Amino acid sequence: MPEPEPIADFYAVVPAGGSGTRLWPVSRAASPKFLHDLTGSGRSLLQATVDRLVPLAGEDGVVLVTGAAHVDAAREQLGLADEALVAEPSPRDSMAAIGLAAAILQERHGDVVIGSFAADQVISGRDGFEQAVREAVVAARAGYVVTVGIAASRPSTAFGYVRSGAGLGVDGAPSALHAVGFTEKPDAATASAYLATGEYRWNAGMFVVRTSVLLDHLARLRPALHDGLRRIAASWDTGADARARVLADTWPGLEKIAIDHAIAEPVAAEGGVAVVPGVFGWDDVGDFNSLAALLPSVDGSGTKILGDTSAVIRVESAGSVLVPASGRTVAVLGLDDVVVVDTPDALLVTTRARAQQVKDIVAALRERGEDDLL
Amino acid sequence: MPEPEPIADFYAVVPAGGSGTRLWPVSRAASPKFLHDLTGSGRSLLQATVDRLVPLAGEDGVVLVTGAAHVDAAREQLGLADEALVAEPSPRDSMAAIGLAAAILQERHGDVVIGSFAADQVISGRDGFEQAVREAVVAARAGYVVTVGIAASRPSTAFGYVRSGAGLGVDGAPSALHAVGFTEKPDAATASAYLATGEYRWNAGMFVVRTSVLLDHLARLRPALHDGLRRIAASWDTGADARARVLADTWPGLEKIAIDHAIAEPVAAEGGVAVVPGVFGWDDVGDFNSLAALLPSVDGSGTKILGDTSAVIRVESAGSVLVPASGRTVAVLGLDDVVVVDTPDALLVTTRARAQQVKDIVAALRERGEDDLL
Repeated sequence: MPEPEPIADFYAVVPAGGSGTRLWPVSRAASPKFLHDLTGSGRSLLQATVDRLVPLAGEDGVVLVTGAAHVDAAREQLGLADEALVAEPSPRDSMAAIGLAAAILQERHGDVVIGSFAADQVISGRDGFEQAVREAVVAARAGYVVTVGIAASRPSTAFGYVRSGAGLGVDGAPSALHAVGFTEKPDAATASAYLATGEYRWNAGMFVVRTSVLLDHLARLRPALHDGLRRIAASWDTGADARARVLADTWPGLEKIAIDHAIAEPVAAEGGVAVVPGVFGWDDVGDFNSLAALLPSVDGSGTKILGDTSAVIRVESAGSVLVPASGRTVAVLGLDDVVVVDTPDALLVTTRARAQQVKDIVAALRERGEDDLL
Repeated sequence: MPEPEPIADFYAVVPAGGSGTRLWPVSRAASPKFLHDLTGSGRSLLQATVDRLVPLAGEDGVVLVTGAAHVDAAREQLGLADEALVAEPSPRDSMAAIGLAAAILQERHGDVVIGSFAADQVISGRDGFEQAVREAVVAARAGYVVTVGIAASRPSTAFGYVRSGAGLGVDGAPSALHAVGFTEKPDAATASAYLATGEYRWNAGMFVVRTSVLLDHLARLRPALHDGLRRIAASWDTGADARARVLADTWPGLEKIAIDHAIAEPVAAEGGVAVVPGVFGWDDVGDFNSLAALLPSVDGSGTKILGDTSAVIRVESAGSVLVPASGRTVAVLGLDDVVVVDTPDALLVTTRARAQQVKDIVAALRERGEDDLL
């Protein structure tokens, strides 16, 4: 079977932000989670994200939006052209990141469809992913803001959910549904109730939408943010000096808001959001416990090792997540389900059950002023 | 009060052997336990051992017996003269080590009293220690092999015991008792039963005896070993070449046996062993769990840190033993009673309850041929 063609007039936007403090000490402010190979695949999360988008958007159809501090590392990992890189002077949350990319692409190409895909997610099942995106693009062309809702494999309290309603009835997008609304991360009982209805899927933060539709919603709902982004986009390709001047004038004053709150939730309430069910493996690799699900077992003990397995000595220990990343030998004796992360300047020892709490260690380090370890 | 004088014609023998595999990765074959400061006192176990013997035996009264590989490190730590160092070409267990020192000292000084004190024990309560040794020396002059029996503070299964009988009735050694016999490490029930009788004390492996008495027992009980040691001792101070030649001829053929089995047990059965109760804190620092008892608490959590306390970040963790010895930051989250030992080339993570089993890690490394880590 020949490779399918990339989708015409479709661009993939990859917002790469967030420091991933729950994955400390692997993930650091200066070298965040998306720059790391957390699955042992040989590719960083960012590289794997771009790898899976190129078949859909084409070699020149991927735009990365990331902090200025990470542009060099991203360029080195990806070999992207300058016009495919949008460097943010400071973090302004996902609406500014995706909105700026949309405005720049509309300046360059007119009214096209964009899809936003975070740089730090892990997806398995490429066929299911591509099918969902292709359907989402069709629904987006019909004027909807389209999200991909992941079939929930467990009542997770770590993810938000999108609730679906009736079929959308758009030709070429047979599985697309109306999105009734979005929810924040639920408690365990609520998450179980969600699953029982069959109407709730994980909100993976993938949004597919025409640039004109997105910008029109933004102009209506967040006019100041819209105007600022359009002003920056208009100057973007008019020379480095002009871009820098407008960025310096405009960027710091932009509202910090997530696209979920700025667009997805209010537009869903108006009936303007669709959801395409995604049938593929998905994880946001939020912490070392979720990492475990992504790594192969090295033996019958359920131990998961990210890195050189020969660096590990394990005696009467099962179910642990071990990250030997300093070149040293890591010996674990008589402890189950622990997390040991060994980096050249910092060592973390905790349990899989406490993995979400690793951010408390980062907070404690920040409080102590140990910025070199953050 | 003036310092008491050293004991006349008394020499302290310090056998420094054993690799301390249960204290890996701090203790290594090339840098065993006795060379390390395991109490945070600023002195290695060996230095602390010699520090406490000099007031009893005098500056020139301490003789160290250790493996040839450790002589340089010991000399550097102690600043001992050459004649105070006995280098063993290979390990031949404690009878050969102590017997050789006894034979050399008898060649040099005639019939004197020696006391042997292992280099890797921790003692607190200097007055109690000195009083016990001074009594033991008096009993030894009367012809006994004298051991110091430590008041057991718990029914330990990690130590052997010495059982006492009737009073010895030697002037100047009022608390000395006949030793009825020795036991191997007991199980927990037996250990509890021992404590209930009041007759059993921990055998700390401290033996005080006249050189002539020791060598006569040895000549009778292990004649070949006795003859070999006397031959080496006779050549010891007759020049480096002669010493080396006799050592090379004789040492490899010497019987490997502990002084407990060679002398203490059979002589006790004959009524020739005395025990002086020792009223002082004593530990053999066998593993990281016993280390915990020797380290000060850093806070109310019962956490014990050997090394730089500022290198540790602890969140919801209590009762752990942490050894930050690589310069890196060690973060522990949500785990109690764990042991984390961080050295430049190897990391150990286990529990205090499994501390005795650390030797299994060393065995696994040996099996894998990772000799550089042993």
